[in-house]
Amino acid sequence: MNTNVFSNYISLNRIKINDPFWSKKIELVRNEVIPYQYEALHDRIEGAEKSYAIENFVKAGRVVQAIKNGEEVSVYPTDKWYYSDDNAQSDAFHGWVFQDSDVYKWLEAVGFSLLNKADDELEEKADEIIDLVCAAQLENGYLDTLYIINNRNNIFENLKDFHELYCFGHLTEAAVTYYNATGKRKLLDAACRFADLICETFGEDKIKGYPGHEIAEMALVKLYDITKKKKYLETAAFFINERGKKPYYYDVVQGKQTVYDNYHYNQAHREPRHQHEAVGHAVRGVYLYSGMADVAKRFEDDELYTACRNISDNIINKKMYITGGIGSTVDGEAFSFDYDLPNDLAYSETCASIGLVFFARRMLEISPDADIAHAAERALYNTVIAGMAEDGKSFFYVNPLEVLPEASHKDSRKHHVKTVRQKWFGCACCPPNLARLILSLGEYCFTENETALFIHQYIGASVKTDKADIEISSTYSENGKVAIKIKPEKEFMLALRLPEWSRKFGCNKAFSVKDGYAYISISEETEIHLNFEMKPKIIKCSNRVRANTDKIAVTKGPFVYCAEEADNGKNLQMLKISRKTEFECDAEFLVADGFREKESDSLYEEWSESQEEKAKIKLIPYYRWGNRGENEMSVYLRIK
Amino acid sequence: MNTNVFSNYISLNRIKINDPFWSKKIELVRNEVIPYQYEALHDRIEGAEKSYAIENFVKAGRVVQAIKNGEEVSVYPTDKWYYSDDNAQSDAFHGWVFQDSDVYKWLEAVGFSLLNKADDELEEKADEIIDLVCAAQLENGYLDTLYIINNRNNIFENLKDFHELYCFGHLTEAAVTYYNATGKRKLLDAACRFADLICETFGEDKIKGYPGHEIAEMALVKLYDITKKKKYLETAAFFINERGKKPYYYDVVQGKQTVYDNYHYNQAHREPRHQHEAVGHAVRGVYLYSGMADVAKRFEDDELYTACRNISDNIINKKMYITGGIGSTVDGEAFSFDYDLPNDLAYSETCASIGLVFFARRMLEISPDADIAHAAERALYNTVIAGMAEDGKSFFYVNPLEVLPEASHKDSRKHHVKTVRQKWFGCACCPPNLARLILSLGEYCFTENETALFIHQYIGASVKTDKADIEISSTYSENGKVAIKIKPEKEFMLALRLPEWSRKFGCNKAFSVKDGYAYISISEETEIHLNFEMKPKIIKCSNRVRANTDKIAVTKGPFVYCAEEADNGKNLQMLKISRKTEFECDAEFLVADGFREKESDSLYEEWSESQEEKAKIKLIPYYRWGNRGENEMSVYLRIK
Repeated sequence: MNTNVFSNYISLNRIKINDPFWSKKIELVRNEVIPYQYEALHDRIEGAEKSYAIENFVKAGRVVQAIKNGEEVSVYPTDKWYYSDDNAQSDAFHGWVFQDSDVYKWLEAVGFSLLNKADDELEEKADEIIDLVCAAQLENGYLDTLYIINNRNNIFENLKDFHELYCFGHLTEAAVTYYNATGKRKLLDAACRFADLICETFGEDKIKGYPGHEIAEMALVKLYDITKKKKYLETAAFFINERGKKPYYYDVVQGKQTVYDNYHYNQAHREPRHQHEAVGHAVRGVYLYSGMADVAKRFEDDELYTACRNISDNIINKKMYITGGIGSTVDGEAFSFDYDLPNDLAYSETCASIGLVFFARRMLEISPDADIAHAAERALYNTVIAGMAEDGKSFFYVNPLEVLPEASHKDSRKHHVKTVRQKWFGCACCPPNLARLILSLGEYCFTENETALFIHQYIGASVKTDKADIEISSTYSENGKVAIKIKPEKEFMLALRLPEWSRKFGCNKAFSVKDGYAYISISEETEIHLNFEMKPKIIKCSNRVRANTDKIAVTKGPFVYCAEEADNGKNLQMLKISRKTEFECDAEFLVADGFREKESDSLYEEWSESQEEKAKIKLIPYYRWGNRGENEMSVYLRIK
Repeated sequence: MNTNVFSNYISLNRIKINDPFWSKKIELVRNEVIPYQYEALHDRIEGAEKSYAIENFVKAGRVVQAIKNGEEVSVYPTDKWYYSDDNAQSDAFHGWVFQDSDVYKWLEAVGFSLLNKADDELEEKADEIIDLVCAAQLENGYLDTLYIINNRNNIFENLKDFHELYCFGHLTEAAVTYYNATGKRKLLDAACRFADLICETFGEDKIKGYPGHEIAEMALVKLYDITKKKKYLETAAFFINERGKKPYYYDVVQGKQTVYDNYHYNQAHREPRHQHEAVGHAVRGVYLYSGMADVAKRFEDDELYTACRNISDNIINKKMYITGGIGSTVDGEAFSFDYDLPNDLAYSETCASIGLVFFARRMLEISPDADIAHAAERALYNTVIAGMAEDGKSFFYVNPLEVLPEASHKDSRKHHVKTVRQKWFGCACCPPNLARLILSLGEYCFTENETALFIHQYIGASVKTDKADIEISSTYSENGKVAIKIKPEKEFMLALRLPEWSRKFGCNKAFSVKDGYAYISISEETEIHLNFEMKPKIIKCSNRVRANTDKIAVTKGPFVYCAEEADNGKNLQMLKISRKTEFECDAEFLVADGFREKESDSLYEEWSESQEEKAKIKLIPYYRWGNRGENEMSVYLRIK
C-alpha cells in the first residue's frame, strides 16, 4: 500500500453540481422519488403493497414508552423474513425484517437533497420522522423495530438471516448525512448510542458474531470519521476480521457444523482477507468489500487491501456485465462463476451496481486506478440509471441485457426479469438506494490528498477545497468535452481520469500519465479543456463468455446501447450489425447499417447462407430502454 | 380421417430383431439393466437410494390378508409425495407415491425380453413378483400399495397429485405384455379386476375425475384391444373427454376455483380436443397425446385427431430439440414456449423422448407421415439411447445439448444437468422405461393394414405376417443400406419411409412416393435394396431459436453429433466449423476442418476479427457423449 496516494472523497458540502445530464436526474429524485417514497413509507399509495415502515416505528415507540412506564409488553414471534396481515397479529411488527432501513434510506436521501438545496418543508418532515425513530430507541441504545415490538429477549439471536446490524448501518449512514446537511445531532446521537451498544456487545471476549447482510462495517467507519471514536473503527475491523473464521459463528449459534466453505451467500465462507473472488449475494458482497477497503485504508492493512484488489479484479475482469451490472444469477441474487454472464437470465440488481460504485470510490481513495473508475462509470451511466424510468415514477430491480416479453411471462426461469419498470417493490431496496446515490453523486466523482485532486467522473460542478476553487463545465456524456477552470490557493497536481473508451483526446495543457490518469501541475489560475473523442464503438466480449460469441455491443462514450423492438420490430436476434457500418448519431439514437435475416422456414434444415435484407438498426442508450411499453430489448447483437 | 390408411403395429410375437446396432442395446438391457433393476427393486444395491418397491407389495399383501382375516389394520397419512424413514413409520408405505410403477415397468421389460428370448429363470423371478403383486390386490380389484398400506379410506382422494391411475396404467401395460409373452393370465386378470373397478368408479353419473399423470388412457386401450371389452375403451375416452372441462374436477374436489386456463402442468387446462399446443410436464403430455391418438383412431374421432395433429406439429416444428429431446424447462419438467430451446438449460428427459416414440407410432397408425416417423427416429437414435451408458450401468434423466461441468456444479440453474450418468435414481422412471422401449423396439418400426405394410424404422429383423415373410438386413445406421427379402403370401404394398436426411437414395425397384413413403407393389418373391446416401450434413436451426444463431449442428444419417472436451479440449465455444469442411469419417468419429479462436485478453474490447488457428474438430454421436468421464460437450458449434 502506498499511503502517499491515499486520498479522501470530497464532501457534498463543498460541491455544487450543475450538469446538463445529471442535474435532471437529481431533480427527478428530488421532485418525484423523495415525495413518492414519503407517501409509500406512510402507506398512502393506493394499490401499492404496504410498507408498514412508519407504522412499525410508531408501534415500537409505544413499546418503549410502555417499558418506561413499567407496563406489561406483548411478545410476538421473531422467526420470519416477512410479517404480513396473514401471519402476524395487528399489534406486531409488519413487513420485511429490514423494513426500518427504508426509512433510513429516505432520511439519507433527504439529507443529501438538503445539501444540494435547502427545503424547510422537507426538513420539517424529516425531523418529524427522526422524532419517531428516536422515540423507538430502547434505553440501552438498541434500535430495531422488529425486535423492539415483537420480543426484546431475542435481540441479536439470528445475525445470519435477520437484519438488525444492517438496519443499524443504514441508520448510521442517514445520521451522518443528516448531521452534515443540517448540523442537527439528534439522529447522529441515536446512531452513536446504538453503535456504543454494538461495540459493547461484539468483540474479542464478547459475542464473536458479525452481520449477515453487511453494511455496518462501512457505516461504523463513517461514524468513526465523523466522531473520531476509535472503538467504531475497531468494531468495523472486528466484524471483518471475525467473519468466516472457523468454527463458523453461525454454526456455533445454531449448534451445527456446515461443510467446509459454506456461507458463500453471506461472504462468510472464509476470512475476508483470504478471499480473492466475488461470491454470494452481490449487494452484500460489494457492501462488505466497501467496508474492507475502508478498514484496509485506515489500518494500512496490506493483506486486506490485496484481498480487495483481487476481488475487484475478479469483478471487473470476469464477473461484470458491459453495463456495469453484477450478480448474474437470480438464485441468491448472486455472483455466478467466472465468465458466466448470461444476457437473458441476468439478475444485475440496481442496488448491486450502486454498491459497486461505493466499492470503487473506496478503492480509488486507496490508489487511483482508471480501470476501477471506469467500472464505476459503466455502472453509473448504464445499470444504475436504467433502474429509474425517465419520469422517475417506476423502477427496475433487475437489469437484464436481453428481454423477450414472452419469456418473462411464460418461462419461470425468467420471472425475475420484468419487462417494464414497476411502481414500487414490496422489498423496496432499489428505489431509495438509487435516490441516495444520485443525490450524493458528487462524493463519487472527486477525491483529494495533500498534493493532488482527482477527478474520477466528469460531472459539471463547482468544487471548493483548500487547494482551489474549481469550476467544471461538462458535456462529457454528450460529446466528451470538459472545461475546468481552476483558481488555486496553493500548488497541486490535478489528476484527470482518462476514459477507457476514448481512442484519442485533446488537452490544452502538458500532462504526464500514470495508472490511466493524466496529471497536470497547477500553480496558477488555469483553464483546462479536455476533448475526449467520442465515437460509437463496436465492442466484443471475451470468448470465455459463452452467451456472446459472434455478437457485439455498441457503445458511445460511457453509454452502452441496445436495440428495442419499438424501433426495430420483433425478433431482434435476426438483426446483424454490419462490421463496416458507420453510425448516424443524434441526441437520442444511433443508427447502424446492418441486415435482417428472413425468418427460417423450418426448425432444422441443411445449412446455407441465410437470406437477409439490408436494414437500418436503431439503437438507444441502455439506460433509456423500457420507457415505451413492453417490448423486446437486446444489448448484444449479431455482427456480419 | 382416412380410415383406409389406418394401420396397426405388428406385435413382437411376429418380429425377431437381428440388427448390428440395436441388438447390442437389446442385449445390454437384457444382461445389465433387467438384473440390476431386479436387485434395485429388492433394495440390494449397496450405496443406492432404497426403492422400497417390493417391500411395499409385501406390506400391502399383509394388509390384504389382515383385512380378509377381519383383523384391525393400521392407518397412516397419505399426504406426501415421498415417504422416507424420516417422515414415515416403518410399517407404512415408503418411497414415491408412484413407486409401484417401477415393479410394473420391470415386469413389462421382462415380458418383452421373454418375447425376444426365453429365459426360465427370469420368468420364474417374474412369476414370484407377480404373486406378490396379486396378493396385494384388494378384493374389489383396487391395487395401489400406498393407499392399501396407509389408508383404504382415502382411495382416489387426490387424482391430481397422486398416482393410482398412473400405477394402474403401468400395471396394465405390464400385464398385457406378460400375457402376450407367456400366455399367463394371472397379472392380466389382476389388471382387468382393477380396470373393472375403475370403470365402475369413473364416468358420467359417477366420479368425473381423470388421471393427474396420464397413461391409464393408452393402457385401457391396450386392455380393450386384447379383451375387446368396450367399457375399457369407453373409460379411456371418458378420461380424455372429461379432462379440462369446467368447472375443473380438481377444483371441485378441493373446493376452490383456479383462474382460467390453469392446470397446464397436467394438460388439464382445457379439453384435449380443443388443445393445439404441447404444454406442461412433457412426459405426461406425450402419454396423454398417445392416449388421445389411440382413442381418436378407435372412435374415428376427427376432432380429437386434429388436436393430436396440431400438437404433434407444434412439437415437431417448434418444441423439439434436434436430438428429438422435448421439454426444455426444468420447472415442471415441462414444454416451454415455442422456439424456446436453450441448449445448456435443457431438460429433455429421456422418458419424454420415449413417450414421443409412443405418440409417433400411434399417429403413424392413423396416417403414415414421414415427418412424424422422422421425429421418432431423432428421439430413438439420439436422446433415448443417450439415456444409457455404453456399459448399460448408468443413466441420464436429463439430456442437455451443451454441458459445462463448472456450470452444473456452481450454477443452481443447472443443477438438474448432470455431467455424468448416474447409477440409478430415487425417482427411477427413466432406466426401466428405457428398458421396456428398447426391448419392444420392433413394435415401433412396422405397422400394417389390409393392403400395405409400412416400414417406419429400418431395423434388421425377420417379420412374419399374413402378408409375407420379410427378412430385413440393415446397416442403416452405419451406411444407410437396407436389404429386404420378401416372400409374399398375397399381393400387398410395401411402404418404405424415406428418411429426411438422405439427399439421394437408390432403390432397385419401381416405386411411387406419398407423404414421404416410397410404395412398392409386392406380388412375388422380391429382394429390395435400399441405399440411402449418408453424408455428414451441416444443419442450421431456425433463427427463431435464439440459442442457436450463428451456430450449426452436424448430423450423419439419423445421428446428431457433438463435440466433447475429451477430443477437443476445453472451451468448445471457441471452436468454429469451417463452412467448407469435408468430413473424415470412421466408425467412431467425424473430423471436420475448422478453427480455434485464441482466448480473448480482456472481457470487453473494441471489435476486431478474432485471432484463430486452424483446428481439426472431432465429433462423436450425441448418444455416446459422457462415456469418458466428466467433460464439456456441445451439440451446436459456431461456423465460419
